Amino acid sequence: MNDRTLLAGRDPLVFAGSPLDRGDLLRRDESAMDTLLAGEDGWWMGLVEGDPVLQQQGGLYWFRRHEIADLADMDAGLFLGHYKGSPCFSAVITKADSLPLDGEISPARQAAMALSHDEAAIYAQAKALHAWHGRHGFCAACGETTRIKSGGGRRICNACESEHFPRVDPVVIMLATDGDRCLLGRQASWPEGVWSALAGFVEPAETLEEACARELEEEAGVKADIAAIRYVMGQPWPFPSSLMIGLVAPVFDASLTIDTHELEQARWFSRDEVRDMLATRHPDATMPPSIAIARRLAELWADEVI
Amino acid sequence: MNDRTLLAGRDPLVFAGSPLDRGDLLRRDESAMDTLLAGEDGWWMGLVEGDPVLQQQGGLYWFRRHEIADLADMDAGLFLGHYKGSPCFSAVITKADSLPLDGEISPARQAAMALSHDEAAIYAQAKALHAWHGRHGFCAACGETTRIKSGGGRRICNACESEHFPRVDPVVIMLATDGDRCLLGRQASWPEGVWSALAGFVEPAETLEEACARELEEEAGVKADIAAIRYVMGQPWPFPSSLMIGLVAPVFDASLTIDTHELEQARWFSRDEVRDMLATRHPDATMPPSIAIARRLAELWADEVI
Ligand SMILES: [Zn+2]
Ligand SMILES: [Zn+2]
Repeated sequence: MNDRTLLAGRDPLVFAGSPLDRGDLLRRDESAMDTLLAGEDGWWMGLVEGDPVLQQQGGLYWFRRHEIADLADMDAGLFLGHYKGSPCFSAVITKADSLPLDGEISPARQAAMALSHDEAAIYAQAKALHAWHGRHGFCAACGETTRIKSGGGRRICNACESEHFPRVDPVVIMLATDGDRCLLGRQASWPEGVWSALAGFVEPAETLEEACARELEEEAGVKADIAAIRYVMGQPWPFPSSLMIGLVAPVFDASLTIDTHELEQARWFSRDEVRDMLATRHPDATMPPSIAIARRLAELWADEVI
Repeated sequence: MNDRTLLAGRDPLVFAGSPLDRGDLLRRDESAMDTLLAGEDGWWMGLVEGDPVLQQQGGLYWFRRHEIADLADMDAGLFLGHYKGSPCFSAVITKADSLPLDGEISPARQAAMALSHDEAAIYAQAKALHAWHGRHGFCAACGETTRIKSGGGRRICNACESEHFPRVDPVVIMLATDGDRCLLGRQASWPEGVWSALAGFVEPAETLEEACARELEEEAGVKADIAAIRYVMGQPWPFPSSLMIGLVAPVFDASLTIDTHELEQARWFSRDEVRDMLATRHPDATMPPSIAIARRLAELWADEVI
């Protein structure tokens, strides 16, 4: 029931499955990394406020270094990894009005749905890292400035020499089920009729299962059986730095008490209703698009795989 | 095979399973939180450089507020949650030489093994949170000072009003297996003869399974079958803020190339050897103590549960 090979025939989730070799060994050699970043080898991705530059015919616009150097902040250039022997980099474009005519900026989520699976995953890495670097120019321990190191793998404080590493924030996203029905909720800010799985950040010193049970109880008042919660699959979600951890959570008390600060509504849906929502034939409820792990969890549950 | 109910009869891992209600609803009411932190209700834990104060007869030394107020930095006091209706707090003791005669400081790992399961989990939360607050007095975005909010659930910048949340760093720890043998490694700094599972931090924009396969290849040169990697269980590890994610990873290429920067050695052990190590009857190899998830993974593998 929880054998991941059951999932193997399905499409991988967007943002997962990067084809890059991240080169952790290489990153330890700072001078080799500096040489690589300054060289003309390889390809550069450009981000404008977190959004990628795409080719007009689709796909990421890969710049040569000399092409992007006039448009971007090259001091904050990142080494992402090697793809088939070529190094891949990214930089934040500061002169978006000087972009080449055949390149266009695409909103992040739209790009994620349009890009190839490999490029979406590479873009996710760049987006998450640039967002973190952009908000970590100073040392949280002493307040002085930090500098980038290891091709973007860390920052070091210029005063106290503290090391700072990019964040990965684990988020549990769970389909609670009482066997015949699953629990979905909606936030007031979402488009009308959209329902999704409940989710929340893992807090310090709790397991994934504990976070799952806590969030279900806080947001909807339902009580999950911690020992029965099962891992399904995960998805990087670079908005800005989450790792979505998909779970299925059998509950032993399905009565609802909604926390209206978090959710506008939550309710139980039958398998038939979920199948209708996924097939866009439910009269008033739909699921998020295929980019979202919540939809995949609902599909697996509707297919009785989880 | 991967049904977590198989694990249900076993002892939970140290640091998991906190009995506290973390009170996320309550934390939103800043004035209620301030009143609670200033009141004489409830119990306070004291930490000295991350180590807990224990009673001489064992167990955490729970202070009343007026008792700890002269010893500790009360401005950095944290609300941990409610235990059977009583609020629980923690504070960093700055005057350790004024501790009561019947309280004693215990090294963190030693305390973790001596405390009850419930108290070890509560301590883990306090330890992780104080370590984070201690290193986040300044805003990473602008360099100005930050202040504590929500009973310790976040910090806010005094200049730019950025919100900062405590980190939880996911770490994959995996038992790679070729079916008959499992892979264990050792670091040069460890006590002689100790072998453990390989582990590493999850990087931005990768799934748990990808991090697992990447670390195995980087550290030991073995190649795992990503679709066959399975989640086993997790453990909070507050040194300083990790969430250990235990996995089992079938490999399709078991040949070893050791990264000697990370590991002194790595080698394959048969099930019989692992059983001998766990029973302390192996001639020259042992496993970490029961506090470590690595030992639990090895036990489950030796028992053919995973
Ligand atoms: Zn510093
Ligand atoms: Zn600030």
